[in-house]
Amino acid sequence: MTTSNQKIIYTITDEAPALATHSLLPIVRSFAAAAGIEVETSDISVAARVLASFPERLSEDQRVPDSLAELGALTQSPDANIIKLPNISASVPQLRAAIAELQSQGYNVPDFPEEPKTDEEKDIRARYGKILGSAVNPVLREGNSDRRAPAAVKAFARKFPHSMGKWSKASQSHADYMRGGDFFSSEQSVTMADAGDVRIEFVGKDGNVEVKKELSLQAGEVFDGMFMSAKKLREFFEGTLNDCKETGVMWSLHVKATMMKVSHPIVFGHAVTVYYKDLFDKWGATFEEIGVNPNNGLSSVYDKIKQLPESQQEEILQDIHDCYAERPEMAMVDSVKGITNLHIPSDVIVDASMPAMIRNSGQMWGRDGKQKDTKAVMPESTYARIYQEVINFCKTNGAFDPTTMGTVPNVGLMAQKAEEYGSHDKTFEMKADGTMRVVNAATGEVLMQHEVEKGDIWRACQTKDAPIRDWVKLAVNRARNSDTPAIFWLDPERAHDMQLKAKVEEYLKEHDLSGLDIRIQDYNGAIRESMERAIRGQDTISVTGNVLRDYLTDLFPIMELGTSAKMLSIVPLMAGGGMYETGAGGSAPKHVQQLVEENHLRWDSLGEFLALAASLDEMGMKYDNPSARILGQALDKATGHILENNKSPSRKVGELDNRGSHFYLALYWAQELANQTDNTELAKVFKPLADQMTANEAKIVAELASVQGKPVEIGGYYHADPAKASEVMRPSATLNNLLDSLSV
Amino acid sequence: MTTSNQKIIYTITDEAPALATHSLLPIVRSFAAAAGIEVETSDISVAARVLASFPERLSEDQRVPDSLAELGALTQSPDANIIKLPNISASVPQLRAAIAELQSQGYNVPDFPEEPKTDEEKDIRARYGKILGSAVNPVLREGNSDRRAPAAVKAFARKFPHSMGKWSKASQSHADYMRGGDFFSSEQSVTMADAGDVRIEFVGKDGNVEVKKELSLQAGEVFDGMFMSAKKLREFFEGTLNDCKETGVMWSLHVKATMMKVSHPIVFGHAVTVYYKDLFDKWGATFEEIGVNPNNGLSSVYDKIKQLPESQQEEILQDIHDCYAERPEMAMVDSVKGITNLHIPSDVIVDASMPAMIRNSGQMWGRDGKQKDTKAVMPESTYARIYQEVINFCKTNGAFDPTTMGTVPNVGLMAQKAEEYGSHDKTFEMKADGTMRVVNAATGEVLMQHEVEKGDIWRACQTKDAPIRDWVKLAVNRARNSDTPAIFWLDPERAHDMQLKAKVEEYLKEHDLSGLDIRIQDYNGAIRESMERAIRGQDTISVTGNVLRDYLTDLFPIMELGTSAKMLSIVPLMAGGGMYETGAGGSAPKHVQQLVEENHLRWDSLGEFLALAASLDEMGMKYDNPSARILGQALDKATGHILENNKSPSRKVGELDNRGSHFYLALYWAQELANQTDNTELAKVFKPLADQMTANEAKIVAELASVQGKPVEIGGYYHADPAKASEVMRPSATLNNLLDSLSV
Repeated sequence: MTTSNQKIIYTITDEAPALATHSLLPIVRSFAAAAGIEVETSDISVAARVLASFPERLSEDQRVPDSLAELGALTQSPDANIIKLPNISASVPQLRAAIAELQSQGYNVPDFPEEPKTDEEKDIRARYGKILGSAVNPVLREGNSDRRAPAAVKAFARKFPHSMGKWSKASQSHADYMRGGDFFSSEQSVTMADAGDVRIEFVGKDGNVEVKKELSLQAGEVFDGMFMSAKKLREFFEGTLNDCKETGVMWSLHVKATMMKVSHPIVFGHAVTVYYKDLFDKWGATFEEIGVNPNNGLSSVYDKIKQLPESQQEEILQDIHDCYAERPEMAMVDSVKGITNLHIPSDVIVDASMPAMIRNSGQMWGRDGKQKDTKAVMPESTYARIYQEVINFCKTNGAFDPTTMGTVPNVGLMAQKAEEYGSHDKTFEMKADGTMRVVNAATGEVLMQHEVEKGDIWRACQTKDAPIRDWVKLAVNRARNSDTPAIFWLDPERAHDMQLKAKVEEYLKEHDLSGLDIRIQDYNGAIRESMERAIRGQDTISVTGNVLRDYLTDLFPIMELGTSAKMLSIVPLMAGGGMYETGAGGSAPKHVQQLVEENHLRWDSLGEFLALAASLDEMGMKYDNPSARILGQALDKATGHILENNKSPSRKVGELDNRGSHFYLALYWAQELANQTDNTELAKVFKPLADQMTANEAKIVAELASVQGKPVEIGGYYHADPAKASEVMRPSATLNNLLDSLSV
Repeated sequence: MTTSNQKIIYTITDEAPALATHSLLPIVRSFAAAAGIEVETSDISVAARVLASFPERLSEDQRVPDSLAELGALTQSPDANIIKLPNISASVPQLRAAIAELQSQGYNVPDFPEEPKTDEEKDIRARYGKILGSAVNPVLREGNSDRRAPAAVKAFARKFPHSMGKWSKASQSHADYMRGGDFFSSEQSVTMADAGDVRIEFVGKDGNVEVKKELSLQAGEVFDGMFMSAKKLREFFEGTLNDCKETGVMWSLHVKATMMKVSHPIVFGHAVTVYYKDLFDKWGATFEEIGVNPNNGLSSVYDKIKQLPESQQEEILQDIHDCYAERPEMAMVDSVKGITNLHIPSDVIVDASMPAMIRNSGQMWGRDGKQKDTKAVMPESTYARIYQEVINFCKTNGAFDPTTMGTVPNVGLMAQKAEEYGSHDKTFEMKADGTMRVVNAATGEVLMQHEVEKGDIWRACQTKDAPIRDWVKLAVNRARNSDTPAIFWLDPERAHDMQLKAKVEEYLKEHDLSGLDIRIQDYNGAIRESMERAIRGQDTISVTGNVLRDYLTDLFPIMELGTSAKMLSIVPLMAGGGMYETGAGGSAPKHVQQLVEENHLRWDSLGEFLALAASLDEMGMKYDNPSARILGQALDKATGHILENNKSPSRKVGELDNRGSHFYLALYWAQELANQTDNTELAKVFKPLADQMTANEAKIVAELASVQGKPVEIGGYYHADPAKASEVMRPSATLNNLLDSLSV
């Protein structure tokens, strides 16, 4: 690494994005150099991480640094500027394949020990363990979340809008949620004055105390406890079903069992056993015997009854059928395949399914494959309310119009696992009636307590102080830099939010707020204001907690852009640096296969373009480097031209692919730089390149196209040969020469 | 008149309220005297006003003062405290009858000259002219409006709630309004820097200028111009009809042709000719010939076609019938009689019909007499939006619950004819395409202009500065005195409201706002906030312009109390005094008839009770007379007991009547005063009375009941004999003696 501060770390990852990097990076490096910015790489691919884990087994020249550890350390530096491309979250089979490939290339890395026995095997297993799964994000996500629609993407959506279903003023669709008995109604919250340990305890009716969990909390940490009554939840479900039966509106359930991975499967299970009440009443004992788990959806019934005699299976299937006659129509996830809303818990994920429904005239699909007005059942009222607000808004004002609507970027609290509700280690399903309480271990003080009943779901939530302070700073910075009003979504009726509000008001004082419009509003007020502004073409930053961050960064992007995949996702690191995440589409193994077979890479580097533009802009601001800002802004415009002129990669061999889209990016970027008048030096530098590229457009495109259609060899899948990959990814001599000329 | 400032002027009016006064006033006088307050009367009955008009024809002892003129003068005094009872708005037949009665009593007043010829007759006619119609209100309403649900009435409604229709979350009902082309979209507004004259002009396509109106404006006066496009209006109506046809939702129109008496009949007429388009297309020429005016509703067709041959009438009726098949179902005003929403323009008055619909599950009645979900069509978006907000709110939260909901009193701008939209002398239906403009007569400056088309409705509106300043003061006073947040409803998208906002912000500075919660919000935000607070049991003062005053003082009272008739209506006079209006039920001629025939007066003096309580309370504050405040508060509680114990007058002879309810008022009032501990002096004074009344309850009620069932003689209808009327209205010697004992 060099000593210059003005440095972008571009991550080398896996598969398609890694291949695309061979083509894109030379362009980026050439352009960035004009602003005095170096672009370094950091290889955090699975293969590199394997190699870095066993230096003692490799020859000197085979060894690689532990880049992920270095990057992790870098997140603590104010100078960090990291472009983070999608990488493989390796499963065991993937890891095995990578190991085999490396071994075949002459690297003496050990086999993956399935069942380690010796100390050596255990050590190896432990080292590989650190590479498995989503190992990268926890190391790098040392900040809160800044998500926004980049200007180029927004402009494109305005010009070429996605389809939006018309809303009828007479729509019967609505959101339905509990009015008591849910987490919202029972939430209690404290802020720790000093650091200390707390115990989460259950006190039985017999007075016995069971410690469920012990936690060390920081000074200033916000700690919440809350529960959902199983009885009230079941009554609520029954009520919604009867209401649908009466009104003829279709019934649908929207939870987030993937994120709220302890609480929401239970909630989902209650929905299943209430909807199919007659079935479970009749077969309850049998189901228990054969291991049916309603929390896994009705699919669990279909699955488990296979062990029963044929005739009994038929009877059960008939009983399921009878439930449909008794109950209101249910929304389908896949009406062709007959997959209902209650089939498996991960099928309807509220943050995606609700925007889809809202975009689709407030309707979902029925058993007959037709769109219908729907009751969207979301038990927990805390967040469900915002969807009812949106639905009322659409009934009143019609569907959002992507061609005119403003944008609602998000600043989300997430650093250091802030507000991780419902998941993980602090959610409990009550096994008996009693009292749940949180006790200060040092003083014995009861910080909060709830009377609970068997089946109730109790959960706690932690939010550390430093992330909140950073979140406030981020919100102010975003408001300042984008000259946009920012609304803190804090509900006066939520105990947790009132703890946060006190901190927000305190930490806002640390900033210069002159000329800024920063407000604190309850959720309904905040979303209403954001929508009222949006339909008038005005932008509003939503500054929210973690769950709303998750929900809103789907909701508004889907309305504005038709997808949340085109959002720019920045993690401004708490230490002062920045990480720019590119895309959420995974690392695309099928793309690699197509390249190897047809020499066509359909990977779209849009996410990289967007991240780079933001990274350059930030660098320009941080180091008072106007050239960097101009580079970033020109890149954003160039990305806009890519979109508008349809120069994104095609899926079909022979047409423009990833490399071609990179050429056009370079062309437009150079043109924008040559034509801008803010920095004539920079314009002068890029003028010849722009002219040459413009003149050679047809030639370069032809050179890029001419190589397609034949198999190529890149020397590896997980660990390709850099020279070979580079050669494959840079087949236009004309383009390469032009880029070289700039660097000179 | 005496010289004491602490004086209530109790108006003597006509018919039932005047009779009731003979019973109530002695009670009031006795009680008020305890706080050193005099109660004087001022006879503004039709008869008194006739007598006052012809002093030269009467003997000295027959002469009466011109009380109305005196009262008018009194409104300019800061000490005015006037209880204004309902009076006759005399028609010519009523006036004739009054004259005849006075003549028969020996008063030499002249006959009413139908067609005055001589100068003398003309003079007589002119004098009588001043007595005709609604002559009293314009003289007395020298202030803005303060309307609220008195504590006693609110408490009663909470304890004995009226019925409220359940709201379905799946309701299809909604409000529909124009999105452009209406008054809202075209409103322009100026504030006059100096006093001066303006001309409202129409400039034709040929350049000819037609002066439509000349006006003298005051310095600081706000002047608005706006128009509604007839073409857009008709397109809008057609769209709403097609939408209803498609969705199966019933169609209904809500306008206010009685108040917006120039603009809204025209709007109504367009609705008629659009709904019955085929009919008017086919018969247009014939209808014109026979004088059909669609602005008078379809009834005009039924009415005028009677002059056509039988066979043609039948054809027209068939064509009307065919329209119903073509068009969506229309809401009925009277489904039994087959009276539709479009029959006559005064049948569906928005400020009453919308609350009725909202109270009725958002439904209206169809042709089959069944309740149905409804599209409430209200073309002008300015105010229609608030109803959609209420509808969305009820869909989300269910019907309002009168037992728990807070109250929304109103402080309304109305003094000096502020914001008199759509009526009278500044509304014009365009006869040709051209330009409407408002020109400063002195400078020739064009203050505003609109391009208009034939058929468009243009109107202007005036709001003087002093009433605005007074309105702000009233709002602050109400917020202070009731310790209630106040919201100024001012819409940032309305030109007029932005002129007002500047003044409001200016005039708020004249007051001590410490500890007060005074906000300015747009209409949707204001009503939403008021509703959110209301369902949490919190009160919110709505501070609004004239039209919203009219709408909201029906909307919230109907939700809260089931009727707007039980509202307290105060006109705090701009000069500093107060006028307390009692009830809106008219002066009830049938009640007099029943009294004369059966000696049973079913008039309910509830309005008088409420007004008196407010009047006493205000007097107490103004003159730092704590006894008066205690009297007022005790009276309010006594009124509560009347309601709760069902001691209001019955309609049936032999049961408790007006006099009996007055006894109970006195009883409860005395008890409350005896039992209060804030003023022991006062308690001591009323203790014996309370004890005696309690002891003699059965006896007094029996005495009051014993006289019923026989005819009585009161010596006149318009000009009863005071002694006779008093004797009839005070038949309980026991009660009379007890009251006398207090006065001693």
